[in-house]
Amino acid sequence: MSTITTDICIVGAGPVGLFAVFEAGLLKMKCHVIDALPQVGGQLSEIYPKKPIYDIPGFPMVLAGDLVQNLMEQIKPFHPTFTLGERVEELQKQEDGSFKVITSGQTEVNCKVVVIAGGLGSFEPRKPAIENLENFEGGKGVAYMILDPEHYRDKRVVLAGGGDSALDWAIFLADVAKELTLVHRGTTFRGAPESAAKVTSLSEEGHMKLLLKSNVTEVHGSEDGLESVTILSDGAEPYKLEVDAFIPLFGLVPKLGPLENWGLELEKSAIVVNTFDYSTNVPGVYAIGDINTYPGKLKLILCGFHEAALMAQSAYSFIYPDKKFVLKYTTVNGVPTI
Amino acid sequence: MSTITTDICIVGAGPVGLFAVFEAGLLKMKCHVIDALPQVGGQLSEIYPKKPIYDIPGFPMVLAGDLVQNLMEQIKPFHPTFTLGERVEELQKQEDGSFKVITSGQTEVNCKVVVIAGGLGSFEPRKPAIENLENFEGGKGVAYMILDPEHYRDKRVVLAGGGDSALDWAIFLADVAKELTLVHRGTTFRGAPESAAKVTSLSEEGHMKLLLKSNVTEVHGSEDGLESVTILSDGAEPYKLEVDAFIPLFGLVPKLGPLENWGLELEKSAIVVNTFDYSTNVPGVYAIGDINTYPGKLKLILCGFHEAALMAQSAYSFIYPDKKFVLKYTTVNGVPTI
Repeated sequence: MSTITTDICIVGAGPVGLFAVFEAGLLKMKCHVIDALPQVGGQLSEIYPKKPIYDIPGFPMVLAGDLVQNLMEQIKPFHPTFTLGERVEELQKQEDGSFKVITSGQTEVNCKVVVIAGGLGSFEPRKPAIENLENFEGGKGVAYMILDPEHYRDKRVVLAGGGDSALDWAIFLADVAKELTLVHRGTTFRGAPESAAKVTSLSEEGHMKLLLKSNVTEVHGSEDGLESVTILSDGAEPYKLEVDAFIPLFGLVPKLGPLENWGLELEKSAIVVNTFDYSTNVPGVYAIGDINTYPGKLKLILCGFHEAALMAQSAYSFIYPDKKFVLKYTTVNGVPTI
Repeated sequence: MSTITTDICIVGAGPVGLFAVFEAGLLKMKCHVIDALPQVGGQLSEIYPKKPIYDIPGFPMVLAGDLVQNLMEQIKPFHPTFTLGERVEELQKQEDGSFKVITSGQTEVNCKVVVIAGGLGSFEPRKPAIENLENFEGGKGVAYMILDPEHYRDKRVVLAGGGDSALDWAIFLADVAKELTLVHRGTTFRGAPESAAKVTSLSEEGHMKLLLKSNVTEVHGSEDGLESVTILSDGAEPYKLEVDAFIPLFGLVPKLGPLENWGLELEKSAIVVNTFDYSTNVPGVYAIGDINTYPGKLKLILCGFHEAALMAQSAYSFIYPDKKFVLKYTTVNGVPTI
């Protein structure tokens, strides 16, 4: 367990969270940044580091990964500190008005202001609405992502879904599982046509079973784990299939996660802020970037940059209510050091 | 006289006006940009092209002139057109709901939306409150800036002011004018100390007259021009001094100019906008960048970029009320051509 004391705790190390360090630094406020991912940059590093972005002002084109590098260089004068690979779990208001932020790794950050720059939140699997499904989570037969395919060697496996993930894993597991069934509610796949063709041929050759216009409607088992699922195919009677594993692959949905319990006003999984300083309904807590919402909101990186600038002014007044703030231009004053 | 027809007429070719071309272009709206200055870039090109800026997101440092070049490169795919060196004079609402913008050079721009990105407005000299001063403007003896110092050769000249402009011109004209008097209301100068020392020694050596704690209080003359000024020095009787030219150099103040007559809601020389789309009280007219005001407003370039993005969405809905707009990301779709 480590304890950190700083002015501002920034939740999220994406481009907007990083630029918030800069705007805070101009006002000589120190920042600590937390991210659940193991590296800075958020989606830009995790999902599309080599993709070009064309709408960052002043860059006719910039690779997402390069933008992250530039931002890291830009905030260097302000010596931010980072906790990466840990998820923020708890926000505690202290008696003196400050906050304590606690992560999944038991890191504690004591700070005066909290800035949530969490992007779309953390991504969690979309789960089908099947009764008692959660009873078999956690190694008891139901999983929503495949971490180690070897785990399914010589097992009876049912996959569900019609996207790339379901198709790709079906092709891979056809050779690994003892019995493999892919259940898909439609007749066509959303995934790549060549993957769909491969699955169809694997099914025709008897390497797996493909059930179209079908759904898994029930799961059955004991305390020891999953034993069978009920499958309902269009125009047929429901029937039970004995299985060792049921893996719905219905994609990922962004979730706010523990932030949902922080007493913040939410609207469609986004944090409601006002537009004069991007503060939330909890004094001292701000939300900037894709995670917030307000009238006219656009989920663009450049909008998050603006929000970071206005947030920093307000955070300064929040931390130092008696100091009069004067906006200074970097062309005139350069960048201070802290 | 030339006539231009476009979707959006942008008034002001500073960084925010230029980026507005990009955001409009992403939505396939064409732009024409007007600026009173002879080149694009606004203050960045006119006042500090070689100065570094540190607070443009993603640029640890960028020279103002380079930022302008980058923005020009970024908007190239959208083929904006420009009218430079002409000041916008009139805004006329047409019967079909469109606008006609008319410049000092009689250029007419027919457009569906007007975006004012005029920065701090045009800069005009600050004039002292002296009765009838304006009677001698326009070549009759009173001027507020020195375009050609040779005009004052062998003339009797009174300068007023205590800043760099007054000091620099006093030093220069000491050799040119027949009689030179610098009138300054204070005892110390705001200008560079070495310039102040130079003026003091020129005065001591008899090359010019320096009157501290003094003001020009009256101007006198005929229809033909200025003949004398009344000078009031602290603790002395006012006296008349015969002069050919009186040049108050009290700095420049930003003015909205003709925009003030466009029926826009103003607050302290700024245009009032809302924060969901940066529209003004006149439907179809937007204001972005330093020229607008709203709660929390910061006069930062990066804030103008954000305002340009939200403006473009709203302008699209204004021009195409029946089209449904879907936000597209440049990482996914690249940049369209128009």
